[in-house]
Amino acid sequence: MCRWLAYSGAPLLLEEALYGGTNSLVAQSLKSRLGAEPTNGDGFGVGWYGARATPGIYRSTEPAWNDQNLHELAGQISSPLFFTHIRAAIGSAVQQTNCHPFRHENWLFMHNGYINEFATIKRDLILAVDPSLYPEIQGTADTEVLFFLALTFGLQDDPAAAVQEAVGFVEAVAARHEVPHPFQGTIATTDGESIWAFRYSSERNSRSLFVTTDIPTLRKLYPERELFGEVSENARMIVSEPLGDVAGVWNEVPESTWGVVGPGREQGLRPFRPKEPSISVPVA
Amino acid sequence: MCRWLAYSGAPLLLEEALYGGTNSLVAQSLKSRLGAEPTNGDGFGVGWYGARATPGIYRSTEPAWNDQNLHELAGQISSPLFFTHIRAAIGSAVQQTNCHPFRHENWLFMHNGYINEFATIKRDLILAVDPSLYPEIQGTADTEVLFFLALTFGLQDDPAAAVQEAVGFVEAVAARHEVPHPFQGTIATTDGESIWAFRYSSERNSRSLFVTTDIPTLRKLYPERELFGEVSENARMIVSEPLGDVAGVWNEVPESTWGVVGPGREQGLRPFRPKEPSISVPVA
Amino acid sequence: MCRWLAYSGAPLLLEEALYGGTNSLVAQSLKSRLGAEPTNGDGFGVGWYGARATPGIYRSTEPAWNDQNLHELAGQISSPLFFTHIRAAIGSAVQQTNCHPFRHENWLFMHNGYINEFATIKRDLILAVDPSLYPEIQGTADTEVLFFLALTFGLQDDPAAAVQEAVGFVEAVAARHEVPHPFQGTIATTDGESIWAFRYSSERNSRSLFVTTDIPTLRKLYPERELFGEVSENARMIVSEPLGDVAGVWNEVPESTWGVVGPGREQGLRPFRPKEPSISVPVA
Amino acid sequence: MCRWLAYSGAPLLLEEALYGGTNSLVAQSLKSRLGAEPTNGDGFGVGWYGARATPGIYRSTEPAWNDQNLHELAGQISSPLFFTHIRAAIGSAVQQTNCHPFRHENWLFMHNGYINEFATIKRDLILAVDPSLYPEIQGTADTEVLFFLALTFGLQDDPAAAVQEAVGFVEAVAARHEVPHPFQGTIATTDGESIWAFRYSSERNSRSLFVTTDIPTLRKLYPERELFGEVSENARMIVSEPLGDVAGVWNEVPESTWGVVGPGREQGLRPFRPKEPSISVPVA
Repeated sequence: MCRWLAYSGAPLLLEEALYGGTNSLVAQSLKSRLGAEPTNGDGFGVGWYGARATPGIYRSTEPAWNDQNLHELAGQISSPLFFTHIRAAIGSAVQQTNCHPFRHENWLFMHNGYINEFATIKRDLILAVDPSLYPEIQGTADTEVLFFLALTFGLQDDPAAAVQEAVGFVEAVAARHEVPHPFQGTIATTDGESIWAFRYSSERNSRSLFVTTDIPTLRKLYPERELFGEVSENARMIVSEPLGDVAGVWNEVPESTWGVVGPGREQGLRPFRPKEPSISVPVA
Repeated sequence: MCRWLAYSGAPLLLEEALYGGTNSLVAQSLKSRLGAEPTNGDGFGVGWYGARATPGIYRSTEPAWNDQNLHELAGQISSPLFFTHIRAAIGSAVQQTNCHPFRHENWLFMHNGYINEFATIKRDLILAVDPSLYPEIQGTADTEVLFFLALTFGLQDDPAAAVQEAVGFVEAVAARHEVPHPFQGTIATTDGESIWAFRYSSERNSRSLFVTTDIPTLRKLYPERELFGEVSENARMIVSEPLGDVAGVWNEVPESTWGVVGPGREQGLRPFRPKEPSISVPVA
Repeated sequence: MCRWLAYSGAPLLLEEALYGGTNSLVAQSLKSRLGAEPTNGDGFGVGWYGARATPGIYRSTEPAWNDQNLHELAGQISSPLFFTHIRAAIGSAVQQTNCHPFRHENWLFMHNGYINEFATIKRDLILAVDPSLYPEIQGTADTEVLFFLALTFGLQDDPAAAVQEAVGFVEAVAARHEVPHPFQGTIATTDGESIWAFRYSSERNSRSLFVTTDIPTLRKLYPERELFGEVSENARMIVSEPLGDVAGVWNEVPESTWGVVGPGREQGLRPFRPKEPSISVPVA
Repeated sequence: MCRWLAYSGAPLLLEEALYGGTNSLVAQSLKSRLGAEPTNGDGFGVGWYGARATPGIYRSTEPAWNDQNLHELAGQISSPLFFTHIRAAIGSAVQQTNCHPFRHENWLFMHNGYINEFATIKRDLILAVDPSLYPEIQGTADTEVLFFLALTFGLQDDPAAAVQEAVGFVEAVAARHEVPHPFQGTIATTDGESIWAFRYSSERNSRSLFVTTDIPTLRKLYPERELFGEVSENARMIVSEPLGDVAGVWNEVPESTWGVVGPGREQGLRPFRPKEPSISVPVA
């Protein structure tokens, strides 16, 4: 049902995150341990911040385990903040424009999960997207619509509030159409400096989400481990499932919470509460 | 700006139409003579009627001149009615879901041309699509939206009226947004029995369109030509540009006209007049 | 490590074989039950006899479970004899020219398995291919080289002898290079009329192979089953693993045997014995 | 028949070279001015030196003008030395393993042109490749074989001598098979520090090749041009055809010559003379 990984810290070669560990993200594309489906072979995407404020994006419809170009790029590109996503499609076409992460200006957005019975409620969701943003929608995936709803609700000003309102709006529209369990998943979004991560589902049984322990603690735990000596103090990785089995490294994010990682950002997790939409909900 | 070909008659091997002639459709993908652009390398599609009422569709984002699978299929598949289309993309992504022909139940639809400033008016056009049809839209091409507008306006009951109303609606919406020259192109649509073909542009300077002379006449003109002896009496081909240079074979369809080919269909061309839309046009 | 299916009988729509059954071949691409690897997502191929003596071939690097074109074609193409193959690549590139089945004139050839340490012995194998056949090699897969060795050893005159000599030659070359367990797998080849199937491995622990019970017996076993009433008396399917769980339908082909299905062919399985090569084996 | 571009100098964003100028390399993929064919739409490749001694490679079978990923990468990746190539295939399959540049350890190699009647002489050429290098051949293109011949003849020690011997060997083998005009083209190769460029054809009517005037001269010629002020003094670009029309920038490399650009390399062009092969030439 997709797997993703977000990194922030001192510049890191992408291949460390994509191919490193006993359960690397690319290994998960062929066989994930915790995913709703073991195979995540319906394309993938990488978004990274580098030469410009606007991040670069590399997306492909090939399975990640097969993509020779991904292997080449991951061995050459370093970045202080990047998103990677492997896809297990449910319904929408396997095409680059449906691969995560999605981008708007300097923002990236990715998701593991789904909007339930998307075909039924898609039209009402699309109509709520700000008309000035509407022409930017490139694909047909539920997540892209969710991203544009969040942008409509002010993602660039207050990401946490906007995502909670977007999910609230999805739930409200779904209620009108009697669609059960409307939202499922984990979400990450970034402006290139901070990363906001969310875990929530309407049924309160959400896809898994993990964040790494802070580096100073890891260094104390594992004084002999070179990797922890090399990465920067502020390095953090947020993932759908752990990349390996080292005890004390991976902390599960609890059900229905969100958090943010970034310079000057307050640590700690907060409850995720879908917000009542500020716009009117169409009658089904 | 795209090239297309429609065939109806006794079953014909696709390769006759796709690879035959000194200016075959596949040759036109690399170098067309009459196209707005010489290269039509942004994917292609074939739709054909065979085992079932619903036609088969083969679409690819590769240039037609390169596609080994197209060559194989064209050498094996015969059909009494088929559409083929080569694409020169203008704006919308090069992906299978944007390749013509588009399909709804037993209907196919393809187009050479464009809706001008599509991004500006797309939202208003999409909102006019019947909500029950809306979830079927798979891609992001202007032509697919035009097809679903025509379906909304009754394509399956009266194709000519529905296409003229869809174009009329596009022109009306464009007028509200002050978009000039809103529609350009030639269109073909079929239910698997008859083919309707249209040539029109808001500026009255439309892409070219040709139809073959009827076979009995061609046999009289060229008694020695084997091909004309072999194909069925009712065989007709409609194309964006002639496949070869044999005199008397290709007849240009005049500006702002439409016609229909099929069993029991009245011959002759009729004027194309965009129809005033039966639904309200949103204020810009 | 790949899965394949071969069919011969009255013309059958490809989708019956590709998408039918509780464990269809396309389902096996995502999750096979008996394969060395559960996922066979590294491309696929279909070869079928139809309009011409030369079979058509459709090959793609996408996972079969994702390929919309395969679904379309399978719903339109009927054939009295076809091969289909889903690939789990081991080493050689994921590209159409490495997808099975391979073709030479009216012959097809496909394989589930491998030549061990192919890189080490490839050069010696290639040099043994008849120089007049050599330019026809299009890809870099071990199976294609095996096919051209079999052609060199007279596949078109005596398929069983030629395949046993090709495998014998591989084993002899491998011995010079001290490569253990040189050959593994099951093979199918056809001239468009009969199908020869082989199960063998140097270590005598070969990939599984099954053939359907003859239709008259199946009709007696299951008088109420419509499918068995509809297919022709001579219909046979040979597969890497059963497409479903109906008792009495699937018979395992024993270790180190081969057989042939086709008009006027003697039934029964014979032992597979690698043949001493008739040409000299290069010194390593 | 392909177009290519090689850059060496201070790190430059790839998009300057790929998308800059009135006749940029990507524009040439759709419509080249000086190419044997106007369209170079059969894939492309980029090789660049960055994080490691081994260059990264990005290759795709899509036309360069369509590749969204190329556009993204070119806007993010800077490199002091890179090769880019757009392909017009002649015969060998359109697949990533046939896209230039080819790589061996820290070396890259690309070519615009062909080996005439390659199918006829390929086997003899392949047999001359050092057996230890042979398993590295990934594709089926004539240029890759030429590269491995040059490596066999010592490319890594003396590039100019090795390329002249490889071409000499091709001509000698072709002579045995009575193949006329065996070699045509321009070649670039690099070790990541210097670039060797060659222009030669057996018929002495070679594809065009241009090199930029040195930057100090360009600064004197165009004191007001910002670009020339910004790039490093030692920056050089070598191309199949000029990227624009600015007088004095592009200098044609004469027929049958070669040159080298790089730190401590002697300037000036030298005659290209195919070298008599040091190994025996097989009898046809």
